[in-house]
Amino acid sequence: MAPEHPLRPIDWDGDHIRLLDQTLLPDEVRVLAVRDVGDLLDAIGRLAVRGAPALGVTGALGVALAVRTLPAAEVPDAVARLRSARPTAVNLARGVDLAAARIPDGPAAVLATALALRDAEIAASEAMATRGAALLTELCGPGRLRLLTICNTGALAAVERGTALAVVEQVHREGRLARVIACETRPLLQGARLTAWELGRMGAPYALVVDGAAASVIGRGLVDAVLVGADRVAANGDVANKVGTFALALAARYAAAAPVPFLVVAPESTVDAGTPDGAAIEIEDRGSAEVVGVRGVRVAPAGAGALNPAFDVTPARLVTALVTDRRVVRQPA
Amino acid sequence: MAPEHPLRPIDWDGDHIRLLDQTLLPDEVRVLAVRDVGDLLDAIGRLAVRGAPALGVTGALGVALAVRTLPAAEVPDAVARLRSARPTAVNLARGVDLAAARIPDGPAAVLATALALRDAEIAASEAMATRGAALLTELCGPGRLRLLTICNTGALAAVERGTALAVVEQVHREGRLARVIACETRPLLQGARLTAWELGRMGAPYALVVDGAAASVIGRGLVDAVLVGADRVAANGDVANKVGTFALALAARYAAAAPVPFLVVAPESTVDAGTPDGAAIEIEDRGSAEVVGVRGVRVAPAGAGALNPAFDVTPARLVTALVTDRRVVRQPA
Repeated sequence: MAPEHPLRPIDWDGDHIRLLDQTLLPDEVRVLAVRDVGDLLDAIGRLAVRGAPALGVTGALGVALAVRTLPAAEVPDAVARLRSARPTAVNLARGVDLAAARIPDGPAAVLATALALRDAEIAASEAMATRGAALLTELCGPGRLRLLTICNTGALAAVERGTALAVVEQVHREGRLARVIACETRPLLQGARLTAWELGRMGAPYALVVDGAAASVIGRGLVDAVLVGADRVAANGDVANKVGTFALALAARYAAAAPVPFLVVAPESTVDAGTPDGAAIEIEDRGSAEVVGVRGVRVAPAGAGALNPAFDVTPARLVTALVTDRRVVRQPA
Repeated sequence: MAPEHPLRPIDWDGDHIRLLDQTLLPDEVRVLAVRDVGDLLDAIGRLAVRGAPALGVTGALGVALAVRTLPAAEVPDAVARLRSARPTAVNLARGVDLAAARIPDGPAAVLATALALRDAEIAASEAMATRGAALLTELCGPGRLRLLTICNTGALAAVERGTALAVVEQVHREGRLARVIACETRPLLQGARLTAWELGRMGAPYALVVDGAAASVIGRGLVDAVLVGADRVAANGDVANKVGTFALALAARYAAAAPVPFLVVAPESTVDAGTPDGAAIEIEDRGSAEVVGVRGVRVAPAGAGALNPAFDVTPARLVTALVTDRRVVRQPA
């Protein structure tokens, strides 16, 4: 596929929301025109749009859609449903609240607020990319880098460029990327489906691994740094992110002869001072179906049950540094 | 399915090898009649039979098949091919060598040796089951146990009962099993396909998780002990086992407030005094196809590459105890 920069999977288009349906990637690039809050809730629920920054913008645009399409009496309920469509990422509720606060000022003000959030997330991705790449140079030296990541933290998770994958892209633009190892990220395979698609699009060298192989790959000295995003960062620095992240943090700290830097890259909009620590973060369990099947193919005996926590919590002590659009918070050595 | 004890996925039947084709589970229970060494090599290569103890017996029976079906001049080559059909489990080469040493004594002696190995593995599973369950009582107390495991270490991996899963079954027989959490074990999903099938067959309560969720589940205090098998145990106690095992060992040690016992259950036939440590164990890379696809469904962009180490090495320091059919080797505290 010919790169078509910048990739922007969520945007406002005149009177509706444009949304790249991520459930169909990498097989099909289909853009949805979402004209109805019910359809938007459905898209959020089935993860047609996902990723903390993208969810924040989606929530704000959803409020803009609600005030344009619904009778005033129905708007509060729509706002409440948008706000709670996914529980773990703080950005969704924040984006909804930001836009909803402008409802008294009319639809144009709501939309302007949502678009300002969109633009702020784009600027935040730029800032994280350069700040993260500079930190990697400081931590790992000026040579070529072998990076490892999980889930999708690229443009598809944000509005443009992304968070952790924006740093990877920056390192690649600077000609310093030796290889990215992308964890496939079961159950929904955002790494295999989405990150591999974005890496291919940017021409970056990469290899997929199953999630269980990451500790081995780190332990064998094949990784210079691990970069992940975040769905919510608590006040004490604990990080909720895609399930599997905690295992990567343990491996980065303990698998190799010396610890490997473990960087969390997330906009300030993901930091939640109102959540004291990881124990206070609600972890969404998405039910058995995603585990006992893979893209529609059953992989377990009929009737098999599963635990399916969509996120896990990495304690702050395992995070080498948090890179946001405004600062780098380093763990005391 | 009505339990039909004991489950014996590999055996000799008059003049051929009976083999339960594990690639078809849990959808179909098909027993293959293998009458030709070429077919047996194919079955080993595509993992129709797998698991270290089962591979040892398969190798020995393969030699018995070779001496009955091939011209004498072709036997040495067949033996060599059987011996190297999979590189990581020491049992395969050992089983082949054991039977091949009797070739001068004639086909009956070779077969008798292979059947003796089969019977020895059955006895070893019994011994591991009772020894492991007793050790769990010692480590965790007499109450009900919440156990976590990876891959398949049941009868399907051995001849009867298995290794780590034999301990789980023993705990269940004793009425002390609260629940098993079974890691699905990508890429080939032996946990979801095979272990879940065996657990269902034995009526044991279980839940599947994706491999990346294990650290989270352990960290949240939902697991009393982790039990795994081994493909090869080095002289220094390092353990090669299904990829993902090392991550479990790290999580057992570091994820929760206090370390969780991490037990390796394997017959003495898996212990290889000739391999000094984990660094000397050859790790089979099985190629990209198993990672970029799941049971025939592509999950990554066309052309995506992958690293696919089938095993990883857990250092001895992370192993609470090695349980074999003859002894319990505890890590000094």
